[in-house]
Amino acid sequence: MSSEIRFDYLNNRWSVISIERSRRPRGYAVSIYEEPTTDLSKCPFEYGNEDKTPPEVFSIRPDGSPPNTPGWKVRVFPNKYPALRLENPNNRESDGFFEKMGGFGAHEVVVETPDHFKHTQDFDSQEHYQMFYTFRERMRALYLDLRIKYVHIFKNHGREAGKSLVHSHSQLLALPMIPPRVDIQISQSRSYFRHKERCYLCDEIKFELKEIKRVVYENSDYIAYCPYGSLYPFQIRIAPKHHYHDFSTIEEVKLRTLGEIMEQVVKRLHKALINPPFNMVVYTSPPVRDIPVYPDYFVGIQYFYHWHIEIMPRITTLAGFELGTDIYINPTPPEEAAKFLIEVV
Amino acid sequence: MSSEIRFDYLNNRWSVISIERSRRPRGYAVSIYEEPTTDLSKCPFEYGNEDKTPPEVFSIRPDGSPPNTPGWKVRVFPNKYPALRLENPNNRESDGFFEKMGGFGAHEVVVETPDHFKHTQDFDSQEHYQMFYTFRERMRALYLDLRIKYVHIFKNHGREAGKSLVHSHSQLLALPMIPPRVDIQISQSRSYFRHKERCYLCDEIKFELKEIKRVVYENSDYIAYCPYGSLYPFQIRIAPKHHYHDFSTIEEVKLRTLGEIMEQVVKRLHKALINPPFNMVVYTSPPVRDIPVYPDYFVGIQYFYHWHIEIMPRITTLAGFELGTDIYINPTPPEEAAKFLIEVV
Repeated sequence: MSSEIRFDYLNNRWSVISIERSRRPRGYAVSIYEEPTTDLSKCPFEYGNEDKTPPEVFSIRPDGSPPNTPGWKVRVFPNKYPALRLENPNNRESDGFFEKMGGFGAHEVVVETPDHFKHTQDFDSQEHYQMFYTFRERMRALYLDLRIKYVHIFKNHGREAGKSLVHSHSQLLALPMIPPRVDIQISQSRSYFRHKERCYLCDEIKFELKEIKRVVYENSDYIAYCPYGSLYPFQIRIAPKHHYHDFSTIEEVKLRTLGEIMEQVVKRLHKALINPPFNMVVYTSPPVRDIPVYPDYFVGIQYFYHWHIEIMPRITTLAGFELGTDIYINPTPPEEAAKFLIEVV
Repeated sequence: MSSEIRFDYLNNRWSVISIERSRRPRGYAVSIYEEPTTDLSKCPFEYGNEDKTPPEVFSIRPDGSPPNTPGWKVRVFPNKYPALRLENPNNRESDGFFEKMGGFGAHEVVVETPDHFKHTQDFDSQEHYQMFYTFRERMRALYLDLRIKYVHIFKNHGREAGKSLVHSHSQLLALPMIPPRVDIQISQSRSYFRHKERCYLCDEIKFELKEIKRVVYENSDYIAYCPYGSLYPFQIRIAPKHHYHDFSTIEEVKLRTLGEIMEQVVKRLHKALINPPFNMVVYTSPPVRDIPVYPDYFVGIQYFYHWHIEIMPRITTLAGFELGTDIYINPTPPEEAAKFLIEVV
């Protein structure tokens, strides 16, 4: 049995049942985490250890060095323990009473720096820029496969946020479906647009810029703020100030200013909460695919969807209330969080 | 500013922004957890420490002892740091561009045993029965307040599952809305019923009883199985075999058999994974309320909704993929988990 994607009808949710991940070195252990080590020869993300990972699919190499050798600034390769694979069948079928899909997709690792001891809070704007540049390039490349419906980009920082190897990295999961969370954002934004003929997030940003009290940082192109209905303490949303739907077609100059605001936000968060664990995710309009049974799904999406980044600090524990209801308890008002993030520098 | 419930339109989710919880002793610390202690005088859930909690609202006292004194078997009182309060306003209003509700509701603690060192895996069927009996009684009492739309019952076992005090306890949150997760289950079950004139969960259970391979345990009234689309490794669903929609009106004899299956399931899970952290939640049909703007919401709910319990072991970390997409990666096929849970005894 290879990995497969199964449907829980009652909860309208998919689960990736991934056998291959259970072969990871530590199996069922409660805590799968590599303790920090100074024996860098064991870290697969170091210069000289390129043969310990699957062959790279992308890298930034200003010195023109050949693939799978040292010299890279950012390096991307398939996850050694992938949740999904391009080789798996891309089909839907019934399984007795139930529904499933083959474990089709892609799962890549983005190593953001060759330096084992450099973490996201140490990155300058150039290093953040390189990370986002890499995300854009991989997203473009993966979308050339028309079976890929969405690419989810995320970063886990710190053990409590699910990071399993110490060396700084992010991940991309290319999916054969639009994730439920993105689908909800699309349908909410579409509904708002049909009522008002305006983009929801454009209006939210306009209001936040007027109110000021939840804004953490802004530059010429972006705003960073603690959302009114934050689920997590110190949650931060970063979005382009001027309407734009698609992260994968963002232009060079706006990748630079994105690197700049990201550096500011991450350094503030790090200082405010003393290196908190966090997840960072990118939400973007999926590429328009011709799906005859859903002819209206993508109509107007470039007008009503607004790409953005969500940073979710993991300083509280998700428990039986949050996971059971999908309502979150957040002990820190976003206004207080924003104030603290401004005053901390 | 007191606690309030805020709406994130983009994600169609509510968040309880609870100032009072941030006053808990350990504030913003990453890890809020009481380390096990042998100094029982400090534990507010011990005999003799009844004055360290708010006054009790329910207890089981076979010896007829007076409230707020020792002698109880199970004791319920409002949470000292409540997320919601009955005293808060029960209203909806705009807040500039946004939407909010007052922090109305109730938040109660169920101490399941006077024994500091007895945990859920040590409970016999009588002790599990007492816990479920208490849940039913509190649910009934809270639903007398017609402003309460849903009571969410949950238990956090172990630090990684969000337990903050060592002494075994569960919690009830009485809410001024039906939670998104329950709403999804209702709409999925309604839709299935309208197609087939059968209850979805009745059909799922019938299939599982025929397939056998995901069944962990069954008795005369209940089945426990690892759901086909399990989000979590070793996830277990417990449901009545014969259709029943409402946990709050469950009869005495079926509380007894529920205690019996719960003991079996918890002991197996404990033995299989060596005391794993887990969340336990009860899903039940909400009480029928006369809400004129949603006249069809409750029609037929006694036929199409099927109450059940979900046990979610927390041996993997929820990270930027799961929290960002609402798709979960589960490294353990439910068939393997069920096999292991049967063989472990």
